This record gives sequence, structure tokens and C-alpha cells, in this order.
Amino acid sequence: MYRPEIKVVDCTIRDGGLSNDSHFTLETVRAVYKATCEAGVDYVELGYRNSKKMFSTDEFGPWRFCDEEQLRKATDGIDQRETKISVMMDAHKSEADDLLPADQSVVDMVRVATYVKDADKAIHICNNATEKGYETAINIMAISKEGAPFLDEALQQFEEETQALAIYVVDSFGALYSEEVHYLIERYRMHIKTKEIGVHFHNNQQLAFANTIEGVIKGANFVDGTFYGLGRAAGNCPLELLLGFLKNPKFKLLPVLEVIGSTIIPLREDIDWGYHIPYMITGVLNQHPRDGMAWMAGENKHHYGEFYKQVTEEIES
Amino acid sequence: MYRPEIKVVDCTIRDGGLSNDSHFTLETVRAVYKATCEAGVDYVELGYRNSKKMFSTDEFGPWRFCDEEQLRKATDGIDQRETKISVMMDAHKSEADDLLPADQSVVDMVRVATYVKDADKAIHICNNATEKGYETAINIMAISKEGAPFLDEALQQFEEETQALAIYVVDSFGALYSEEVHYLIERYRMHIKTKEIGVHFHNNQQLAFANTIEGVIKGANFVDGTFYGLGRAAGNCPLELLLGFLKNPKFKLLPVLEVIGSTIIPLREDIDWGYHIPYMITGVLNQHPRDGMAWMAGENKHHYGEFYKQVTEEIES
Repeated sequence: MYRPEIKVVDCTIRDGGLSNDSHFTLETVRAVYKATCEAGVDYVELGYRNSKKMFSTDEFGPWRFCDEEQLRKATDGIDQRETKISVMMDAHKSEADDLLPADQSVVDMVRVATYVKDADKAIHICNNATEKGYETAINIMAISKEGAPFLDEALQQFEEETQALAIYVVDSFGALYSEEVHYLIERYRMHIKTKEIGVHFHNNQQLAFANTIEGVIKGANFVDGTFYGLGRAAGNCPLELLLGFLKNPKFKLLPVLEVIGSTIIPLREDIDWGYHIPYMITGVLNQHPRDGMAWMAGENKHHYGEFYKQVTEEIES
Repeated sequence: MYRPEIKVVDCTIRDGGLSNDSHFTLETVRAVYKATCEAGVDYVELGYRNSKKMFSTDEFGPWRFCDEEQLRKATDGIDQRETKISVMMDAHKSEADDLLPADQSVVDMVRVATYVKDADKAIHICNNATEKGYETAINIMAISKEGAPFLDEALQQFEEETQALAIYVVDSFGALYSEEVHYLIERYRMHIKTKEIGVHFHNNQQLAFANTIEGVIKGANFVDGTFYGLGRAAGNCPLELLLGFLKNPKFKLLPVLEVIGSTIIPLREDIDWGYHIPYMITGVLNQHPRDGMAWMAGENKHHYGEFYKQVTEEIES
């Protein structure tokens, strides 16, 4: 009934940090970490390990940097069980030297987020992490904007030049329909022979969970979710839906549901993630959600017609 | 690129009426009607034509009955363009005599909602409407609970004994995954040779739009949506997503987006439809949402763990 090879990665704090500059309280992060451990989630990503030379520590919270000391505060005293800890490093916004050897670190896995054009930077960051003893994965962002030839080249490089456990399809704009998910995974599989394929979807068109299912059907074995879909703009595939679907008896839904009610729902006072028309519009148009986020922060956020006219006129001009 | 055979049915007022006992203001219904006409939506369902002997007119609003006079108030003075008007009759809660001859009515189509067990009642209501000159369709509710043999029998009857334009897959509980949608449409197609197949999905697991796409891919040509997903509990397939996907140039997104902002969003002050964990739980468990709706109306609606324990203990006991 279930496929034991499937690994679930919770990235609530990491992707959610794109909606609040990674300013979660320690209490929130500990609650999320504890629930993922209790739920049997395979990996929990507690933030970015990005460079303090490129992000101001005044502006961004601790989960943009994930200092080892901070990660220990988030995890000390909680029974880790089988759950591994991940951090994400942006290929173009992080430095290899910011990683200690794995045996001195709380971190188990480093995921490298990259655009196709930064494939060589990603390989550098990824291989440095491998050499230091970490598990690794590579997340190819904004995949809905990539043409096949450059994507093919990057995939072949990742296959040949890295030890990444998984290469991800990342639909940053929430633009993909199921047929495109099928196409992309088949395209990945033409090159990725020795690694798993991963999927990370955004929810602009309410397709993040559905596309994750389609990814699983096509053989993806690394799947991302977040508590109640918390993530940038429209957010991500809701972890609770994913666990309900996967049917692996090792996953426990109850701790996830409890923490959503106690810890995630209250965050809505400050963060308005989820399905909103401006994000739906950028998704349909295959655009970065930044214009939608700016519109949602304005006074006339429900004047959707005006926003639609603005962005479609930009495209046509 | 697009499939001109596809007919879009907006059922905002009809399905949304299950969340407010059909108490929409005339102003709301006129705004929805006008926007569907301007958007080029094929059918707009303005409510139920159910029996006043079975529903109290004190308790339920006018869109539970859709008297002709009421429908005229909702539509007079608005350019109807190509949009046809539908009402729904529950097979077990309506009376054939409540239909005038079509040439004396505002209504173009009668959709008969039924459970498999009420197939004969549905055929009676459907054929009466056909004889009076209406287009008809049959919506088979709670399809996720139906075993194949009785479903097969009902489908064969609907095929042979009615003139319905379409026979619908209705996932009342929001329980279906894509593979089940594929299976059901193939099962329908074994019997339904002279009619279209329709799809109507609920959004308990954020799959209403995705499953509609899967229905379209498998050949369904009648597809239901509602403005911003307004509908019972978790709601329905959002019409705006559907129009964005279908790509038929006759559909205009702008009037739909404008009315969502001006008319639908304000309804959230009184109706809390959409994705909520109690509805997700009933969807995963393939149950009617009524327990989830009761929980959401209570004081501890965010105590999701308690609700989950309650409903799973009921199943196991």
C-alpha cells in the first residue's frame, strides 16, 4: 500500500521564513521540531544557512543563518527519534566555509537551492558539504521558467558531478499543472539515474498537494511539505495532507494536527500565507509572487481586478 | 489548445447555500449572476428548487426554492449573453410538480442531485423536467461511498432511461485522490455512451481543482466551480482557477476576479468556508463534513487533535 522509499521533508521554518524574514520565535521552532520528530517525518529543515555577508543580521532572524548554537537551542532536550535535521544553502547566497565538519554539527543534510544558471555554484556548495560528511540534495528553483536544453545540461552535471541524494523539481511560482509535473519528472529521469527525484511545490493554484501526489505517482521519493502549508505567499504542500495520503504507518498525524492548532494558526495574526487571488494570478501567469506580495501588503488588497489589469498590461507592454 | 465541448457550471449560490441555509441577499445573487454572464460561463446555478413541504421557508432563504418570481428579481435587467440558468432538485427532497413548463420559466437546466439508492426517484424528476422542456443533468452525490455494482446499475439506468445531458461524479466528502477520479470516469464511461460526464469536487483536501483537471483530462465535459471556492464546509473547485486553466478565449477572468473582491470576500464575515483541519480530517476519513462543521462552530475549533481523536475513536468503536 505505501512506498517505504518515500522520504518526507518538513520545511515549515525554512520556507515559512521567506514570509517573515525568518523571525520565528524559539518556542515556535521547538514546537515544530518536536512535532516532526513525534510524527516520524524523515527530515526537518530548520532554516537557511546563508551568508551573513549577504543578509543583514539586523534585518533577518536567526533561521536565515542557522548557527549551530541556535540549532542546539531549538533541538536540545527533544527526543529526535529518526528525524534528521536539514538546512538549506542558496547556491548564490551562501559560502562553503559556513559549514563545519558534519561530526561537529547538529545538521544531517544540506539542501542546495539553485537556479539552473547557477548550477556550477550549486555543485561547489554541494560537494563541499558532501566532503564534510553531510547528506545533500539539490533543489532547482523556478523550474517552470526553464527551457529544456539548459535544464538537461544542469541535470546531467548534477548526476555526474555530485553525490546528492536527490535532485528536486521546485515550482517556485506555483505555475505547474499535473501534465507538466509528469513531463518534468520524465525529463529529470532521462539524466538522473543514480539519485532520487524530489518535489517541492507552491500552492498559488491550490495544486501543491495534488502535484506532489502526481510526483509520487511518477516516482519522486523526496517530498516536501509544511505545517498547514506555511510558506512564502500562497505557501506549500500541507504536510498534514501529505501524511494522510502516504499511508506509511510510521507517520503519525496527531502531533502535526495538534501543533497546527496550538502554534501555526496563531501565526496568521502576522503572516497572511495561503490562497489569495493575487498569488493565484502570478501563478497562472507563471511569475514570481513578489508583485502579488506587494499588492497584498497594500491598502486595496481585495481590488483584484486592478491587480490583474496591472500585471497583464505589464506582460503585454 | 482548449476543448470547446467543455461546459462550465458556476454553482456558487447553490452550493454556497449549504453553508448559510441559502440566505444570500438579492444583491449578492445579482452580482454573481452578472459576473458569470460577463465571464462567458456556460451555466449559472442560482439555487435549489426544493420542496417547501420538506424545507421550512422560515428557516431557509429564497435560493433553496428558487421561485420563478425570485429568479426574475435576480436576473432582470442583466444582459444574459450566452449564460444559461440552472436550478438543482434533490431527488429525495423535491417534487416534480414544482416545475413549470420551460417556456414559462427563467430556468434552462434542471440538475437532479441523487444518491445511488435514489436512482429511480432521480429518473422520475429528471424525465419530468425533460418532458417540460428543460435541459437536464444528474449529479450522483457521495460517490466516494458507492460500491461498484449498485453504481453500475444506476449508471446503466441513467444512460437508458433519461435524456440527461451529463451524468456527474460528485465527491461530496472531498475524499477522492486523482487515481480514484480516473477510475470513476472510466467506470462511468463503461455505461454512459450517449451523454457527457460531469465532475463536481469538494476541497477538503485541497484537491477540488486538481481533481477537476484530472476529470477534464479523462474526458469530462461538464465541470463545476464556484467563486473563490464558496460552498459547503471546505467548499468547491474555485471557478477562477478553472477558467485560468481552460484557456478557452471566450472565458473572461476579470469580472470573476472583481466580484470575488467586491462581493465574495465580504461574505467571509459570516461564512467560514475553505480549507480547515476538521474538514481535512473528514475528507481523509471519507466522511460527511457534518461533524467537522459542528466542530468548527464550537468554541475549541482549533483543538484539532481532540477532534481527530473523537472521529477516529468513533470509527474504531
